[in-house]
Amino acid sequence: MKNILDYETVSLNDEKSVITIIDQTLLPEEIKLIDLSCGKEIWDAIYLLKVRGAPAIGVAAGFGIYLLMKKSSANTKEDFLKELDENAKYLESSRPTAVNLSWAVKRVSQKVKKYISESSDFSKDKALEIMRDEAKLIKKEDIEVCKKIGENGLTLLKKGDGILTHCNAGQLATCKYGTATAPIYLGHEKGYDFHVYCDETRPLLQGARLTSFELFSAGVDTTVICDNMSASIMKEGKINAVLVGCDRVAANGDTANKIGTSVVATIAKYYNVPFYVCAPTSTIDINTKTGKDIVIEQRKPEEVTTMWYEKRMVAEGVKVYNPAFDVTDNSLISGIITEYGILKAPYDKSIKELFDSSLMS
Amino acid sequence: MKNILDYETVSLNDEKSVITIIDQTLLPEEIKLIDLSCGKEIWDAIYLLKVRGAPAIGVAAGFGIYLLMKKSSANTKEDFLKELDENAKYLESSRPTAVNLSWAVKRVSQKVKKYISESSDFSKDKALEIMRDEAKLIKKEDIEVCKKIGENGLTLLKKGDGILTHCNAGQLATCKYGTATAPIYLGHEKGYDFHVYCDETRPLLQGARLTSFELFSAGVDTTVICDNMSASIMKEGKINAVLVGCDRVAANGDTANKIGTSVVATIAKYYNVPFYVCAPTSTIDINTKTGKDIVIEQRKPEEVTTMWYEKRMVAEGVKVYNPAFDVTDNSLISGIITEYGILKAPYDKSIKELFDSSLMS
Repeated sequence: MKNILDYETVSLNDEKSVITIIDQTLLPEEIKLIDLSCGKEIWDAIYLLKVRGAPAIGVAAGFGIYLLMKKSSANTKEDFLKELDENAKYLESSRPTAVNLSWAVKRVSQKVKKYISESSDFSKDKALEIMRDEAKLIKKEDIEVCKKIGENGLTLLKKGDGILTHCNAGQLATCKYGTATAPIYLGHEKGYDFHVYCDETRPLLQGARLTSFELFSAGVDTTVICDNMSASIMKEGKINAVLVGCDRVAANGDTANKIGTSVVATIAKYYNVPFYVCAPTSTIDINTKTGKDIVIEQRKPEEVTTMWYEKRMVAEGVKVYNPAFDVTDNSLISGIITEYGILKAPYDKSIKELFDSSLMS
Repeated sequence: MKNILDYETVSLNDEKSVITIIDQTLLPEEIKLIDLSCGKEIWDAIYLLKVRGAPAIGVAAGFGIYLLMKKSSANTKEDFLKELDENAKYLESSRPTAVNLSWAVKRVSQKVKKYISESSDFSKDKALEIMRDEAKLIKKEDIEVCKKIGENGLTLLKKGDGILTHCNAGQLATCKYGTATAPIYLGHEKGYDFHVYCDETRPLLQGARLTSFELFSAGVDTTVICDNMSASIMKEGKINAVLVGCDRVAANGDTANKIGTSVVATIAKYYNVPFYVCAPTSTIDINTKTGKDIVIEQRKPEEVTTMWYEKRMVAEGVKVYNPAFDVTDNSLISGIITEYGILKAPYDKSIKELFDSSLMS
């Protein structure tokens, strides 16, 4: 079995003018790198979860907006700005819940808009250079941020701990280390001997297909469970901490993450197991007041009924409800682990303090 | 699409000396009736969940022990009793958690043993007649009991209610009406317009494949969700009550049922949604003091990793934990709906009162 950690989740090949990603829908059966070269390909890759995970989507979208402008025929300032906004809107429409997607697109767009507004002459080459550099910086920062989250998270764990994680907030969701997996990878290197349980995470099975594959590749003791087994392993005392990623954290700490996360959080609360959200500050959206303001993406019934199966798993005609995310109430969260440290309740206060501090400037 | 409710879950064909069942592993794609004619076929059908659901397993096992003795060459009383015990032990070994299995085998065995011990002459024909009649009586009673549970459960529901159910405690788990579905079927006939959500119930997908198929066949408004979506629909106010079946209720009300049931119960508690266990008294085991005394069946990893899939869903080498049941603590249960009425906490007291009462004599 190949080691999935030997492959880059997202990379820019500027010479070929393509973004190269691992097609994650084929894992764990096949490790296949694919090139995305136009807007439709990038949009589809994000929508179809070939590239997924809030930080990785951000990096792909950053490269994406650069690439689309590179291929644009716009040569005047006006045309460039118009197409920039159109492309940004298009890419942002691929998935509504993860804030990193629009965050990255806006960050690259604003950088180049600032340059354009401040320059007397419009140079498309210079504009593109600025966009490419900013997109590359997002990727570089992602790796640094994940490592810091790992270091901060590791202070909450001890040797031999049993850890439960949901979905994939691993290297495959970022550029390295992952968010929820970062404390696990860093601890594993230091001989912490964790026992990690991965929720399989229906309907798209990111925990079964991706997280367990990653951790097993790294030599971590890894066990897959179905999502409905979390209470059993907590009751048996197998879990000392839950670590999950997030797609968007509201200003009050309410957290949108993969569907089922709030179930795990509620079960953890019942069994007195600490539940930690691993969140790069780029996923904290202070413009979203509470979880109620987060739009939850609804996805196709076929993901539940037929997508992975040899046969139909639900009789024809039966309805399916398929929200991609849920919101975990801040009262269920023991701490939010960021690159700058661990935020504690009351989260409206601790998040505001962080965003007002010099760390974020 | 054929109506699955037109088929009998378990029936005895005495002329052909076979038990006829729907092969439930093929649903919803194919409705196929299969005949079980020897011990190995009956054992496999129970172990492989071709017939499943505590009450239906009980009926199949009752017919099974009769059929095995009918085919036995034992002609003396001693040989008959010896083979009876051997066959009983063998059938009971197919699944350890559901109490109905051993309950039905013991009931049929004890009836014939009583006859044998009280008769001066041993008549194999008469012994078999007694066994067959008792097994048929179990089936007849199952239908009556389910109907009573439906009537009692319906008193807890109101028109337009949203109901969540887990796994399949439907007609396919019994001989008619089901246990958890009985209030739904009876209410539906009376125009209650329920909105029923079925947990798909990993790993074996009984909710997706069976329950939603049944209810949809009856014309009930039915929606399938993944197990990890229960918190979302409760938070959205879609659910007024949870109804589940059970495999074994301990003397203190702790309830073993399909894996994930205790997750649903915990989530329901958090969202103040009443959680009801529908339990024929045959599933209440007063000899099991608490949930801790219930043996939880562990099943093969392949059910999680490959069973339904076109490809492997978990990388090779990764471990899988696959308990078939969990135990829901009595503190999470709002009521236990039996054929004799609704038991309320404290369950040790209400269960003891019921079993000491003239109703159970």
